[in-house]
Amino acid sequence: GKTPEHLIHIVDEWVARGKNVLATRAEPSIAAAICARIARAQYDPVSRCLAIIQQPIEPVDRRLCIVAAGTADVPVAEEARRTAAFFGVEASTLYDVGVAGIHRLLGQIETVRQADACIVVAGMEGALPSVIGGLVACPVIAVPTSVGYGTHQQGMTALFAMLNSCAEGITVVNIDNGFGGACAALRILRTIQR
Amino acid sequence: GKTPEHLIHIVDEWVARGKNVLATRAEPSIAAAICARIARAQYDPVSRCLAIIQQPIEPVDRRLCIVAAGTADVPVAEEARRTAAFFGVEASTLYDVGVAGIHRLLGQIETVRQADACIVVAGMEGALPSVIGGLVACPVIAVPTSVGYGTHQQGMTALFAMLNSCAEGITVVNIDNGFGGACAALRILRTIQR
Amino acid sequence: GKTPEHLIHIVDEWVARGKNVLATRAEPSIAAAICARIARAQYDPVSRCLAIIQQPIEPVDRRLCIVAAGTADVPVAEEARRTAAFFGVEASTLYDVGVAGIHRLLGQIETVRQADACIVVAGMEGALPSVIGGLVACPVIAVPTSVGYGTHQQGMTALFAMLNSCAEGITVVNIDNGFGGACAALRILRTIQR
Amino acid sequence: GKTPEHLIHIVDEWVARGKNVLATRAEPSIAAAICARIARAQYDPVSRCLAIIQQPIEPVDRRLCIVAAGTADVPVAEEARRTAAFFGVEASTLYDVGVAGIHRLLGQIETVRQADACIVVAGMEGALPSVIGGLVACPVIAVPTSVGYGTHQQGMTALFAMLNSCAEGITVVNIDNGFGGACAALRILRTIQR
Amino acid sequence: GKTPEHLIHIVDEWVARGKNVLATRAEPSIAAAICARIARAQYDPVSRCLAIIQQPIEPVDRRLCIVAAGTADVPVAEEARRTAAFFGVEASTLYDVGVAGIHRLLGQIETVRQADACIVVAGMEGALPSVIGGLVACPVIAVPTSVGYGTHQQGMTALFAMLNSCAEGITVVNIDNGFGGACAALRILRTIQR
Amino acid sequence: GKTPEHLIHIVDEWVARGKNVLATRAEPSIAAAICARIARAQYDPVSRCLAIIQQPIEPVDRRLCIVAAGTADVPVAEEARRTAAFFGVEASTLYDVGVAGIHRLLGQIETVRQADACIVVAGMEGALPSVIGGLVACPVIAVPTSVGYGTHQQGMTALFAMLNSCAEGITVVNIDNGFGGACAALRILRTIQR
Amino acid sequence: GKTPEHLIHIVDEWVARGKNVLATRAEPSIAAAICARIARAQYDPVSRCLAIIQQPIEPVDRRLCIVAAGTADVPVAEEARRTAAFFGVEASTLYDVGVAGIHRLLGQIETVRQADACIVVAGMEGALPSVIGGLVACPVIAVPTSVGYGTHQQGMTALFAMLNSCAEGITVVNIDNGFGGACAALRILRTIQR
Amino acid sequence: GKTPEHLIHIVDEWVARGKNVLATRAEPSIAAAICARIARAQYDPVSRCLAIIQQPIEPVDRRLCIVAAGTADVPVAEEARRTAAFFGVEASTLYDVGVAGIHRLLGQIETVRQADACIVVAGMEGALPSVIGGLVACPVIAVPTSVGYGTHQQGMTALFAMLNSCAEGITVVNIDNGFGGACAALRILRTIQR
Repeated sequence: GKTPEHLIHIVDEWVARGKNVLATRAEPSIAAAICARIARAQYDPVSRCLAIIQQPIEPVDRRLCIVAAGTADVPVAEEARRTAAFFGVEASTLYDVGVAGIHRLLGQIETVRQADACIVVAGMEGALPSVIGGLVACPVIAVPTSVGYGTHQQGMTALFAMLNSCAEGITVVNIDNGFGGACAALRILRTIQR
Repeated sequence: GKTPEHLIHIVDEWVARGKNVLATRAEPSIAAAICARIARAQYDPVSRCLAIIQQPIEPVDRRLCIVAAGTADVPVAEEARRTAAFFGVEASTLYDVGVAGIHRLLGQIETVRQADACIVVAGMEGALPSVIGGLVACPVIAVPTSVGYGTHQQGMTALFAMLNSCAEGITVVNIDNGFGGACAALRILRTIQR
Repeated sequence: GKTPEHLIHIVDEWVARGKNVLATRAEPSIAAAICARIARAQYDPVSRCLAIIQQPIEPVDRRLCIVAAGTADVPVAEEARRTAAFFGVEASTLYDVGVAGIHRLLGQIETVRQADACIVVAGMEGALPSVIGGLVACPVIAVPTSVGYGTHQQGMTALFAMLNSCAEGITVVNIDNGFGGACAALRILRTIQR
Repeated sequence: GKTPEHLIHIVDEWVARGKNVLATRAEPSIAAAICARIARAQYDPVSRCLAIIQQPIEPVDRRLCIVAAGTADVPVAEEARRTAAFFGVEASTLYDVGVAGIHRLLGQIETVRQADACIVVAGMEGALPSVIGGLVACPVIAVPTSVGYGTHQQGMTALFAMLNSCAEGITVVNIDNGFGGACAALRILRTIQR
Repeated sequence: GKTPEHLIHIVDEWVARGKNVLATRAEPSIAAAICARIARAQYDPVSRCLAIIQQPIEPVDRRLCIVAAGTADVPVAEEARRTAAFFGVEASTLYDVGVAGIHRLLGQIETVRQADACIVVAGMEGALPSVIGGLVACPVIAVPTSVGYGTHQQGMTALFAMLNSCAEGITVVNIDNGFGGACAALRILRTIQR
Repeated sequence: GKTPEHLIHIVDEWVARGKNVLATRAEPSIAAAICARIARAQYDPVSRCLAIIQQPIEPVDRRLCIVAAGTADVPVAEEARRTAAFFGVEASTLYDVGVAGIHRLLGQIETVRQADACIVVAGMEGALPSVIGGLVACPVIAVPTSVGYGTHQQGMTALFAMLNSCAEGITVVNIDNGFGGACAALRILRTIQR
Repeated sequence: GKTPEHLIHIVDEWVARGKNVLATRAEPSIAAAICARIARAQYDPVSRCLAIIQQPIEPVDRRLCIVAAGTADVPVAEEARRTAAFFGVEASTLYDVGVAGIHRLLGQIETVRQADACIVVAGMEGALPSVIGGLVACPVIAVPTSVGYGTHQQGMTALFAMLNSCAEGITVVNIDNGFGGACAALRILRTIQR
Repeated sequence: GKTPEHLIHIVDEWVARGKNVLATRAEPSIAAAICARIARAQYDPVSRCLAIIQQPIEPVDRRLCIVAAGTADVPVAEEARRTAAFFGVEASTLYDVGVAGIHRLLGQIETVRQADACIVVAGMEGALPSVIGGLVACPVIAVPTSVGYGTHQQGMTALFAMLNSCAEGITVVNIDNGFGGACAALRILRTIQR
C-alpha cells in the first residue's frame, strides 16, 4: 500500500541514520532506483530482497536448514534465507526435494536432522512438512506457497494441509511468507543462544 | 434421503428377485432389522456395508491394493474393499502407513507396485497419494476422508491436496467415497480383463 | 513460478541430452523464442503445448477417447490429446457434445464405448461425465475446466459437480488439467498393455 | 424460528377466519398436534406439507410438470406438487429420471414438452435442468436439493451447476425450496391464464 | 475461451448463411473489426451487444419490463433488453430505482404491474427483486450483478440475497447474465403467446 | 464454552456483590436453576435473556427504535431491547415490517425517524436496513440474523447484504448479535446525553 | 461501473447547478481531466478524493477521531477524513498505532477518549478496534482494509476479526469503505448536534 | 474415527507394556470406563485429558508460559498445559487477559517475557498473539480456538487473524489444537536443552 516515492523516501531516511535496511518483495524497478542511489544496496531478483548493510551483522551461531519442495518454491525459500542472513544466521538449504520423489529427500535428511530449526517451504499439496516432521525432532516451521493451479486456491490448499499435518508439533506461517518464517526461526535460535 | 421403511422395502424387493444386494453406509439399526428378516444378509459394522449374496460372484482376476493412511481412515478403506469383493475383486490391504512415518510405507511399497490398480485413502493433510504416486506406475485412485479437526473442512483439505498432487496422473473421487473408489477401480480392472 | 530465461535454459539442457521434451501451458512468446533456437520444436497455440521429439516415441496400442463439452473446452482437451500423443497414445476425439444438445452425444456414443479409457472435459455445470458415465463401462477421467462466468468459480462448480456425479466410478483431476488427465489415462493404458 | 405453540396458535387463528392454510416443512409432531385439533387438516409425511382446505380452491387450468432426478429428491418435488395443488394447479410428475440413465428421461420427455411450465428438482451434480432445458421450449424452474454427500455442500454444488447451465434461459430458486419453485410456476401459469 | 479470429470466422459463416446473429459480451476491438467487414452489424458499447439483422424478426406481442437498481447495473439490463429485442420483444425499462430511494420505485411501479414478466437487475445488496416481488403478481426474474466492492464477492452477495428473498416465487439467473434473464423471459412470453 | 455449574457460580458471585446481572443466550434449564435460587431473577424465553436487578438502573433519556423484518427475527430484536432496557434505555419497537410488504413499513416510518438511533434486525436477504437507511437520518445499526434456509449461510447472506447496502452510513454487528447491537446504540445514546 | 466520459458528464452537471461535489476512488487520470476543466476542483492522490467546493460547508461542531493501524491503511483513513471534512467535520487523526507496538497507542489514547465518535481503520489481523473499544466509551466505527497478503482474503480476515471483537458495541462497515465509515460517523455527530 | 471399544483396547495394550499414556479429547464416558479399570488413570474434565503415568517423566528444565484470552479458551490452554506436563515441562499460565482489557495483560507481561517459549490461546478475533508478539522476543506459538459465534467460522476467523499478525515471527497451529501447540513448544524447549 505504499507508493514507490514513499518507499524510496523511507529507505533514504534509514540509510541516513546509518541503519541496516532489508526490504522484501521489492519490485525490480524500485530496487533499481534505490541501487542507483545507494552504492551499498544489493538486490536479489529471485527472492526480491533488497539489503543495505552499513553496520556489522552480529552472527547467531545456530544451525538453520531451509527446505523447498519444488523449484517454483525457491523464491520464497530464498526470501527466508536472505532474511535469516540479514539477522545473522547463515542457513543451509535443501531444494527440489518434493514428496513425489521421496528418495531424494531421504538421501539428504541428515542435513535437516542436525539443524536447530528448519523452515519447510512447499506449495501444491503442501505435504513436505508432514514427511519431514516425522523424520526430525527439531522445530519445523512450515511456509505454504501460492505455487500451483486449479484448486490450489492461492496457497490455501497447502496452508490447510500443513495445519492438518499428521506429524506432531508442526507450526505454520502465512502464505508465501518467507520473511515471517525466518523471523520465527530467529526467535527460536536467539532464545537458544541467550 | 430415504426412510428406513423405504430402504427395507427396496431390499426385500431385490432379494425376492434373487439378486445380490450391497448397501453402503447402512445404519446399524436398519442393518439389524434387515439381518433379522434375511438369513443371508451380512453386516460389517466397521465399513457399514450390508451384503446379501444370492448369486455366485464372477471373479475379476486382477490385483487391487487398498492403502489407508491412519486407523481412522479404515472404515472408508473397508467400504472400498467390500465393494470390490462384492463385484468380484479380492483386494490386498496396507493400513496405517501415513506419511509422518514414511519408512513403514517404504518397507511395504512392493505390494502396491505389483497391483494393477491401487486405492489410496487418507484424511488430514491427504499427502499419501502424492508419495505413492511417485513410487508406483499403476493407476492411483485417491479417496479423501473427512477424518481430522479444525481446518480439515470435512475432508475438503485432503481433497484439495490430492487434486494438487505433485505426482502425475493421480485421480480423485468424492470425500469418504470408498464405494466410488472401488467402482472406479472396477472400471479399470474389468477393462484390463476384457 | 519459473522465469522465461530459466525455462529456456531447462529446455536447452534437455535437448542437449537428446531427450524428448513436452512443455504445457507454454506462453506464445517463450514458445516462439524456443522454436527460433531449436528446429525440431513444434508449438500448438490452441493447447499451448510445445513438443521437441528427438527420440522415437514408443506407441501404446490402446484406444483413448477424448470428449469435450463446448468449443471453449477444446484447449484443455487438446492439451490432453497432445500429452497422450507425446507418450505414445493416438486418441480419438469427440468435441462440442454438451448436455444441452444431448442427441448429438447420443449419436456418437459408440466411439466412446469402444475405448479402453475416456477423458471427458467440461466447464460450466460439468454435467457431461455423468451422462457419459451412465452410457459406457470403461474408465472415465473427468477434467473440469475454468470455462464459464458468474458463479462458475474458476472451475470449482464443474469440479464439484463431477465429484458428485450420480454415475458410479467417475474419477476427477484438477481444474484445466488436461496434462494430468492424460497422465491418468496413460497409467491405465500402460497397465492394460503390460 | 417459530415455537410449536406459536405455530399452532397461528394456524388456529387462520382456521377461525375460515381461510385455507398451507404449512410446509411441518415437523411430524407439530402436524400431529394440529391434525388432532382440526378435523380437516391433512398431513403428508413425505413432503411434510400440512394443508387445511376450508374454501374451494379456484383451479388454474394450465399444465405444470414436475421432474425429479432421484428418489431422494422426491420430498422436495412433492412439496412443489402439493403447493401447486393448494393454489389450484394439478401437476403431472416424472420422478427418478437422473442423467446417469439418460434413456429413461428421453423416453418420457414428451410429457415435459407439453407442459406450460416445468419444475426440475435435482441434487448431487444438478445436471438434469441442463438436459431438459435443451429438450423443451417452455419455462424451466430448477430446484437444487441438499441431497448428496462429501462435496455436495448442502446443495450448493447443485445450485451452482444449475446457475451455470449451458442450456439457455433456465431459472433457479433456493436450495430445497419446492414451495418457492411452485410459487414461481404459479406466477407464470396465472399470467398465461389472465 | 474463443480467440478473436475464431469469433470473426464464426460470425462470417453465420452471415454467409443469411442468419441473424447476436453476440453478447463482445469486446469493442473485435466488434469494430466485425462492423468494418459487415455493413449491417450494429454494436452497442454500453451492453457490449453486437447484432446483425438479415432476416425480419418475428415480434412476440407481450409486455416485458426491465428494472435496474443503479446506473452501474445498466449495462447488464441493456444486455437483457437488446437480447429480448433480438428475439422480438420490445421491453419497457425502469432504471435507477434502488431501494435506498424507495419512493422513486413506488411512483413508477404501475409500469411493472402491467407487464407479463419483469427482469430485475441489481448488484450491491440485491434487495430490489424482494421489494418488487412483493408489489407485483407477474413472473419476476432476478439478475444479480457484480457491481459493488469489498464484500460484494463479485456478485455472490446479490445472488444469495435474491435466492433468499422473502418475496415468494422469485427466480434467479447467473451473475451479470442479462442474456440468460432475457432468454428466461422469452420462454415465458412465448408460452403465453402460443 | 462455559459449563452450567461455572455459569451458576459466576452469577452467584455477582449477586453476592449486589450487582445487576444480565445473561444473554441463557439456556432455559440453566435459567430455571438460577431463578429457583434467586428470587429477583427474571427470565424471558423469547430473547433468552436472564436479568437480576438489585441496583436501580440509571435511565438514559434518549429514543431508540428497534425494527425487525420477520417474526422469526423477533428473538434477536428482543435480545437487543432487553439489553438496552438493562442499561437504562426503553426502546420502541416495530416488528414484522419486511421489505416484501413495503407499505407496512412506510406507514410507520415516522416512529423510526423520531429516534436518536435505530437497530434494524433482519435475516433472509437482509434488505431492510437499506430501505430504512434511505428513509431516516439517524444512526442505523444493522443486525443480521441466521434466519433462513438453503443459501442463507447461517446469516452470512444477510450480513454481506447489509455491508453492501446502497444506503450510506449503515453499520453492522455480528450475526444474531442483538446484545452487541444494543451496546453499539448505548455508546451513541450515552455520548448524546453526556 | 461508470465510464470516464459518463463520470465527467455527471460532475459537469453538478457543478453547473452550483453544488458541492465529492468523488471518492477517483482514478488519477479522470481526476486530472476534471481538474483541468474546473478550477476549484481539488484532488488528493493519497485518498483518491476529488472535491469541488462551491457552497460554504456548514460545520458540524463535534469531535471525530480517525485512527489507522499501519501506514498502508492511511489511504482509507484519509478517505474517511476528507469525506467528514466535506460534510463539515474536521477530524483529528492518530496514524501508525498498530497493536504490535501497543505502547504507542496507549500513549495517545486520550485523544480518542475525548472524541464524540471514532473511526478505526485496520487491515491485516484487524485487532485495533478491539483494543480501542476496551479503552474508550464513545461510538467506535471499524473500517477493515484490504491491506495484507496470503490469507488476508482481500480484507475479509480483518472484517471478520472486527465482527468478532471481544470489545462490546463495535460496529463495522464494508472493506476499504472510508467513505461509509465517515457517513456513519456523520449520522451520529449530526444527531448529537440536533 | 475410533470406536470406544477400540480406544479402550489400545489403552489397555499400552498400559500392559508399562508405557505412559496420554489421551486428549477423551469423552467423559470413555474416560470413566478407563479410570474404572486402571487405578493410575487420571482424567481432567476441563481439558478432557486422560493421563496414565507408569514411568517417571524426564523433566525438561525450560520455562514455558501459556496465555489464554478468555475463560472460554481455558480448556484448550489446559490441553496444552497438561500435554507439556506429560512430556516433562511445567508451564506457568496467564488466563483471562484478552485485548479488550489490555491493562490486565500489560500488568503481567513480565511472566511471558521470562519464558523460553509461549503458547497464546485465543478465539473470537484472535488478536492476543499480535499484542504479545510485539512485547516479547521469545518464540510465540498461537493456538486459535473455535470460541465465538456468528462469523467466527468455527475458529477460522481467529486462525486467519493470527496468520496475518502484524507482529513478526508468530507461528500458528490448527484450531483448538492445544496438544499440537504443546508439541511445537516441546520441539523448541528440547532443542534448547540438548
